[in-house]
Amino acid sequence: MKKNVIVGQSGGPTAVINASLYGVVYEALNREDSFGTVYGMINGIEGFLADYYMDMEPLERSGELELIKNTPGSYLGSCRYKLPEDLEDAVYPQLFEKFQALNIGYFFYIGGNDSMDTVSKLSRYAQKISSDIRVIGIPKTIDNDLIETDHTPGFGSAAKYIASTVREIAIDASVYDNKKSVTIVEIMGRHAGWLAAASVLARKFEGDNPVLIYLPESNFDQDAFIDKVKETLECTPNLVVCISEGIHDKNGTFVCELASDVGVDAFGHKMLTGSGKYLENLVKERIGVKVRSIELNVCQRCSSSMLSKTDQKEAIASGAYGVKCALEGETGKMIAFKRVKGAPYTIDYVTADVNKVCNQEKTVPAQWITKDGTDIGEDFIAYARPLIQGEVTIPMEDGVPKFAYRKTH
Amino acid sequence: MKKNVIVGQSGGPTAVINASLYGVVYEALNREDSFGTVYGMINGIEGFLADYYMDMEPLERSGELELIKNTPGSYLGSCRYKLPEDLEDAVYPQLFEKFQALNIGYFFYIGGNDSMDTVSKLSRYAQKISSDIRVIGIPKTIDNDLIETDHTPGFGSAAKYIASTVREIAIDASVYDNKKSVTIVEIMGRHAGWLAAASVLARKFEGDNPVLIYLPESNFDQDAFIDKVKETLECTPNLVVCISEGIHDKNGTFVCELASDVGVDAFGHKMLTGSGKYLENLVKERIGVKVRSIELNVCQRCSSSMLSKTDQKEAIASGAYGVKCALEGETGKMIAFKRVKGAPYTIDYVTADVNKVCNQEKTVPAQWITKDGTDIGEDFIAYARPLIQGEVTIPMEDGVPKFAYRKTH
Repeated sequence: MKKNVIVGQSGGPTAVINASLYGVVYEALNREDSFGTVYGMINGIEGFLADYYMDMEPLERSGELELIKNTPGSYLGSCRYKLPEDLEDAVYPQLFEKFQALNIGYFFYIGGNDSMDTVSKLSRYAQKISSDIRVIGIPKTIDNDLIETDHTPGFGSAAKYIASTVREIAIDASVYDNKKSVTIVEIMGRHAGWLAAASVLARKFEGDNPVLIYLPESNFDQDAFIDKVKETLECTPNLVVCISEGIHDKNGTFVCELASDVGVDAFGHKMLTGSGKYLENLVKERIGVKVRSIELNVCQRCSSSMLSKTDQKEAIASGAYGVKCALEGETGKMIAFKRVKGAPYTIDYVTADVNKVCNQEKTVPAQWITKDGTDIGEDFIAYARPLIQGEVTIPMEDGVPKFAYRKTH
Repeated sequence: MKKNVIVGQSGGPTAVINASLYGVVYEALNREDSFGTVYGMINGIEGFLADYYMDMEPLERSGELELIKNTPGSYLGSCRYKLPEDLEDAVYPQLFEKFQALNIGYFFYIGGNDSMDTVSKLSRYAQKISSDIRVIGIPKTIDNDLIETDHTPGFGSAAKYIASTVREIAIDASVYDNKKSVTIVEIMGRHAGWLAAASVLARKFEGDNPVLIYLPESNFDQDAFIDKVKETLECTPNLVVCISEGIHDKNGTFVCELASDVGVDAFGHKMLTGSGKYLENLVKERIGVKVRSIELNVCQRCSSSMLSKTDQKEAIASGAYGVKCALEGETGKMIAFKRVKGAPYTIDYVTADVNKVCNQEKTVPAQWITKDGTDIGEDFIAYARPLIQGEVTIPMEDGVPKFAYRKTH
């Protein structure tokens, strides 16, 4: 009897996590000789524990699956549920009973670091109880911080959105070019600066905005920052500075914490503010020029307007490759990308031991950041540029993007 | 001897203010029997007073003019310069001597309210001194707050960006749909709520997000807001609320002022915060659910990713129509749109007396807002939907949009 398939999504949304879902589902449905029913778990492992799941096949018949491919966010819903470290915990037999009841032979989990931890634990538990369920992780995270892979699906589209938007913000900042101004753009990335680094791709020529880029990989010094801004304003009167939300001083104190240490909100609570807002106030106080800060916020991960064709293609292919690997007997693996050395840009799809991947974090190499920690070098550009190539045309309805959505009520 | 043309841009950027520039320049260059040189003033009237201007013809030859059409922001640079009320002021003869020195016969000024004030004053001064210089205003503002016109170029693209982005934010907000959450989206608009109202176009069906929309046209009551949010969370666990930045209580106090009355930033200064941030803290304090606020910020006016084809077409046509009207002898006029009654959507290009337009403000009609001031009715949707129709494909280079730019240094 053919075994069934189940796929889930976990962690924060990206623009292509649904493209990976499409890849898994499409591939599994089209290998009907090998697989039985293809299920989707609603709200990841957490929802599955409460018996929320759905049959994915009708979505292909109705055409909804094609829409899912271009829809940002997690179609199946997500969760932030960490399985217990102790494999003796009661949740494991509970989960595997549910798998057995549905005759599941293959479980695909699309997610980032924490989701790979889930893949690791479930595959180890399967081994422990001699279950033949194969568990495969499909990577996704805009943060690009997974090890054992050249990059992660989701990063390319977020990078393309950031580069394009920073280029537009630089135009917006320069319309009154006879007056000095500073625009600070705060970009996601608590511990790794990949996304803020991608803002360098907005630059059209040397000296073009964003002139200054600060990542959490270098320690941030407020005095050096102010001096650098003052100096740069001499040649670039409308300066755009890009920062990671996670920039911190040499003691590890986040810049955003400096604000909440002192500020109080209207309700008398500690003010929770961003690093950008803090630096805006700092520039106002210390330099006195016109200054504003912009938080790119969730649009970085959920905008469909700047989907990278390369990213989407790789996201779909990693889902499909996961299905192929599971069928060939692999388990406890994460699908990974290996870049083929030399131009033009090509990647091979490979598998990585998920136990090595989970709970690790890949940061931007120090040699890709210029010496004083205020800019990004050519090596990063060569690495990131291929990942933002190509555009995706989103279907529109009545002037706005048409997305798939799962009726939840 | 043929008279020369000069065109300038003023006020805040929009996604199509350059499309209007394209319209003026292309039309004037292609009526070479009627016009001499076509100049652009750099940084509006203010830059022109310092003799900053350029010849626009080489841009057509180099192909740059085609790029300008799709480039957000003000290609020629902008200013916020208000001419003195007193037409006896020395600046007027100074300006007109400069016009005369360049043999200018036609002046086109692309801008919003304040720019129409400039058009009004210059046309009145021209009349006063019996100058035959014709002065025409080409409207632009994302705020859509100019009177005497059905709508303004710039609004359609901003509305399309807002509707699309709010739809994406609603997806992002719903991935953990098993937990209650509130997402507050702050949209531009200090006195008029047109842009926040456009968020209603994100809605796919009745009851879909954004469920609550608040405009400055209705007085905002914090207690009623909290009650409404609590009530709405019962059926919509992942609630998206859209607000204009300019919402205020019945005494006219802006919600964002409530924060700065009490809050203090890290430097001991009054905290300048947005209305969205204030309401985020209010919901946290009074309801205690997960809540976040997102400020759409300058991307509303400078993003090229959601250009409305209708808006761009009308922006170009209003520039070209301005040239035609000036040639026919009109002056002291603003180009305006008159909607032809009945479907399908059609507009006529007309002229409005600029003296009536300037320093007036058009707000969203009260009857287009639902009675309790928490939603937008069908009349607005019927009005706004045609303005966001059609997409524009932006040329790309190396994965990011290719824009025109004027070398300033």
